[in-house]
Amino acid sequence: MKQIAAAMLGWMLLVPPPSQAASEAVSYEAQAKALLASPRFAQARAALERDYDRTIDHLVGLTEIPAPPFKEQARAQAYLALLKAQGLSDVELDAEGNAMGLRRGTGGGPLIVVAAHLDTVFPEGTPIKVRREGNTLRAPGIGDDTSGLAALLAYLRAMDAAGYRHKADILFVGDVGEEGPGDLRGVRHLFTQGKYKDRIAAFISYEPGRAGRITNGGVGSLRYQVSFTGPGGHSYGSFGLVNPAYAMGQAITGVGRLQVAESPKTTYNVGVLEGGTSVNSIPHSVAMTVDMRSEGREQLEQLRSQFLALLQPAVDAENAARDTREGKVAYEAKLIGDRPVGRTGEDTALVQIARAVAQAGGIAPRLGASSTDANLPMSLGIPAVTLGCGLDSERSHSLDESVALDKPVDVEHLSLALASLLLLAGAE
Amino acid sequence: MKQIAAAMLGWMLLVPPPSQAASEAVSYEAQAKALLASPRFAQARAALERDYDRTIDHLVGLTEIPAPPFKEQARAQAYLALLKAQGLSDVELDAEGNAMGLRRGTGGGPLIVVAAHLDTVFPEGTPIKVRREGNTLRAPGIGDDTSGLAALLAYLRAMDAAGYRHKADILFVGDVGEEGPGDLRGVRHLFTQGKYKDRIAAFISYEPGRAGRITNGGVGSLRYQVSFTGPGGHSYGSFGLVNPAYAMGQAITGVGRLQVAESPKTTYNVGVLEGGTSVNSIPHSVAMTVDMRSEGREQLEQLRSQFLALLQPAVDAENAARDTREGKVAYEAKLIGDRPVGRTGEDTALVQIARAVAQAGGIAPRLGASSTDANLPMSLGIPAVTLGCGLDSERSHSLDESVALDKPVDVEHLSLALASLLLLAGAE
Repeated sequence: MKQIAAAMLGWMLLVPPPSQAASEAVSYEAQAKALLASPRFAQARAALERDYDRTIDHLVGLTEIPAPPFKEQARAQAYLALLKAQGLSDVELDAEGNAMGLRRGTGGGPLIVVAAHLDTVFPEGTPIKVRREGNTLRAPGIGDDTSGLAALLAYLRAMDAAGYRHKADILFVGDVGEEGPGDLRGVRHLFTQGKYKDRIAAFISYEPGRAGRITNGGVGSLRYQVSFTGPGGHSYGSFGLVNPAYAMGQAITGVGRLQVAESPKTTYNVGVLEGGTSVNSIPHSVAMTVDMRSEGREQLEQLRSQFLALLQPAVDAENAARDTREGKVAYEAKLIGDRPVGRTGEDTALVQIARAVAQAGGIAPRLGASSTDANLPMSLGIPAVTLGCGLDSERSHSLDESVALDKPVDVEHLSLALASLLLLAGAE
Repeated sequence: MKQIAAAMLGWMLLVPPPSQAASEAVSYEAQAKALLASPRFAQARAALERDYDRTIDHLVGLTEIPAPPFKEQARAQAYLALLKAQGLSDVELDAEGNAMGLRRGTGGGPLIVVAAHLDTVFPEGTPIKVRREGNTLRAPGIGDDTSGLAALLAYLRAMDAAGYRHKADILFVGDVGEEGPGDLRGVRHLFTQGKYKDRIAAFISYEPGRAGRITNGGVGSLRYQVSFTGPGGHSYGSFGLVNPAYAMGQAITGVGRLQVAESPKTTYNVGVLEGGTSVNSIPHSVAMTVDMRSEGREQLEQLRSQFLALLQPAVDAENAARDTREGKVAYEAKLIGDRPVGRTGEDTALVQIARAVAQAGGIAPRLGASSTDANLPMSLGIPAVTLGCGLDSERSHSLDESVALDKPVDVEHLSLALASLLLLAGAE
């Protein structure tokens, strides 16, 4: 345990002293091998296998409880009941709506937060019924991140079955507000307002993906809602007046033509369009949401500048093209999301442990960057990663999102995902 | 009454024999003058003046009962109660939702329908509270066509107060579905399904406007909902896939650049935009509604062709600009409204009476074309016009729609609007 305690000290300090880095990397590898070879871990893996159907039942059941942004309550209550049934202590819904419970440690250890997010991107009213097509389960949100929620419950049952105890306190959280408009409100509350806020030493969020997927880069994102307004009017009687839809059409086209770097990966998206009251009215107001992301701070700022710079010309063109007698078209760009670019260093214990476990399990670790709940602790300087939960999914955020079931592979990867947590928490 | 009976025969045949046209035009003028100069009409005018505040109370009260397309029920029930209180017979809500009641004639006359539409363009949830600013009343829908609804009640009370009797049966209707998506469903039912369908000899719809406004041209309209679909996906993970929003942006821009004739007046509009699920998802589907209108059949068809022709290139450009690995962008253009171009000839009795009354009242008649409930009977060959109800409004279909009150002028124009009906119905 001495090595693990040293490792903990390492990640609590973010970066181990340079002189120790090489030797500790070796010891993480050794520890990971020892853990995977232990009889207790074999019991945990056997429990995951025995328990697989229940895990899939939870996946299906939770998926079918809609959880649109800001409307995660029903799913949060269901998850709370499942955490309670699992025998966690201090099970509660916090003020922001996160469902959470504590698996207490043997004492004296840090607090580790393990999270999967409750919310999906799909708005209220989206039909959500899981369709089974052979081994594939298909439904909006089934992967992102309902698979993480189901996996957390599977880890808990496996830890219980194998009788694992650990030094750290582990807080299991189904959190709200990870997607789009939520702007990380769940984890933000946890780290800045919640009752554990000053005790959290490390954070792992589990998202769909196989073991070895280690997201230690926090892709920064900037999100805008841009509204275009005008005088409105009757489509026939007031024909010829400026129409904000044409200004927005031009702006959308402009966004679609933005050029971005391939590396560091930089992206943009027009996501939601809305506006107008009826087919025969010139709209009073139309709006779009735009998402911009980058692994590079500078690239993200450059993209923001280019994006903002194309709005006024689109509005000017419309005001020049039609009659402004009743008023001009104008725009407002409102920042609705701002996630800092962040990174948990490759030399932190958290990343090294996840890497060592993957390697010990015969999997090549793949470090990468994304925009997840881990961005928030990263921005506060707290070691954080997002790991593949073991279940894999495809077509995330699309209506035909799916999880393809492959029991032997799924069990192997669930067990490796759990192993990183066990090692980090000083399990014995 | 002989002249009036001849007039009726004239409008029932649509066009009077050419040899009679000149002499009858003179007689309509003479009849109109006689009617306006009669003591009974003076009583009716006095009643409109005495009753003015009640008319405005009805205007405000009805405006504040929301009546979005397909959701006119609450306002229809309220209007039904007002028609009943007015002592009409056969007061009922028909199967389509029109509120109506009969002012019976002395017998042997035709059935005339007098209508104002219940629906507004404003969707559910639009705040509708009438604001008074000096003499101006402001609220969405207060003019179009709540002013017509209130005017019909005022006419009825004035007819009662003056003791008017008339040969024709007059059906007073608050009809549903005049605006946009309703596609004239209320009057369509009345003329093709309702119990009076084979008896209707003429139709007047009252809309906001002063007397002398005579809409005898039915502007044709074609309305489309165009949806653009694609594979969707995660804004970051799937960046580079085709996005239907960019195809639609290009199509919107294309619509905005269409060139149309000034005469016959031809117009287009992009009205409602929608689509996408979240800021951080590539939309699966986006859509827009497009309204095209013309007084000319050929011009409308030409506009339709130009519009439809720009959709495929917009889709092709997006499929060429980005990755179609997960699927291509496609579009579907669904016809959601189709109102034929129509006209009630200037030589029909209906138009000549309205014209003669305006002239007798010292107002220059202004014939014109629009797209109203009258389009439907016009398309069936039944004489139909839309007349200004007497109350005037501004900024129709916009959120700052208003009615400016001017009691002496309003009363004068309400009385002239009523006079056309009285003459047509063979009142004595």
